[in-house]
Amino acid sequence: MADRPWTVRRSRHLLRSRWLSLRADDCTTATGADVSPYYVVEAPDFVHVLATDVDGLVVLVRQYRHGVGGPSLELPGGNADEGEADVVATAARELREETGFTGGRWEPVARLSPDPARYANRVHLVRATGVVPGPAEPEASEALEVVRVSPDAAIRLAVEGGIVNAVHVGLILLGLRADPA
Amino acid sequence: MADRPWTVRRSRHLLRSRWLSLRADDCTTATGADVSPYYVVEAPDFVHVLATDVDGLVVLVRQYRHGVGGPSLELPGGNADEGEADVVATAARELREETGFTGGRWEPVARLSPDPARYANRVHLVRATGVVPGPAEPEASEALEVVRVSPDAAIRLAVEGGIVNAVHVGLILLGLRADPA
Repeated sequence: MADRPWTVRRSRHLLRSRWLSLRADDCTTATGADVSPYYVVEAPDFVHVLATDVDGLVVLVRQYRHGVGGPSLELPGGNADEGEADVVATAARELREETGFTGGRWEPVARLSPDPARYANRVHLVRATGVVPGPAEPEASEALEVVRVSPDAAIRLAVEGGIVNAVHVGLILLGLRADPA
Repeated sequence: MADRPWTVRRSRHLLRSRWLSLRADDCTTATGADVSPYYVVEAPDFVHVLATDVDGLVVLVRQYRHGVGGPSLELPGGNADEGEADVVATAARELREETGFTGGRWEPVARLSPDPARYANRVHLVRATGVVPGPAEPEASEALEVVRVSPDAAIRLAVEGGIVNAVHVGLILLGLRADPA
């Protein structure tokens, strides 16, 4: 019962835009309850990278985030561009644009959901080691501060509230747990 | 620069509903870029509970989640009802309704953001220990399966992909790290 999908009787979009769309589904649940409308947020997949540089430091970015209306220290990353199916390529592009770091060794680590109840997209974690500094190319709307910390310090930030993004708390603890170092 | 908030020139709601609202803000970033519209998802705060029962087992719930269109194994919890400012009380209500577990000792652990870029609300983690079983009271739309696992098994589920909800990966690793046991 818990695994049985809902039946969608009617579906329409209240908004379609490049980075965020909102779908309204009229649903009947497995228990026969009517849930109408149920709103689903559609967005491109999110791709984030837990990168350590040649000094063994974790590369984080600090920026203003308008949803929460304040600064947030996060893993580099962003939305997959349309047609961008290779999460490692997306992660490498975002890391280079946001921080200037390139090179190193790369591997996908996890494919999760940012919010299974409301979000239809996926969030990917990619791990990079041994990246080297270079010139960043932030977008015009981005004001990013690059912050490098030791893996232990990154874990402390995640555990003690220095990382406010709950998804990134998970990705940092996940990514550094799997660290072979 | 990275901490400087955007200026909101105009703001309106495309949708206002009980569980999800969508706001469109016309913004100027700290770098002077025009971001119009920028969509913000508004929702009640989410409250989740990492509860261990009198046998020391972690209480999880498995249910169909319509955003991702499949089942998800998660921490019990849900939306704070209107005017429900006490996160421990919300967590205790959700745990009782979804799983029947009550009693035990409770403490708030973390106040994070489910997605600082797009979500205006907060996600709270509450820790409960020594909860005891009783009758559940799921809502008519809910079909929940209660799953109890050891803390080690919960960590393995979070690390190895058995937990698809990235926020809950973080909350589980966070909550069990802080476990005094």
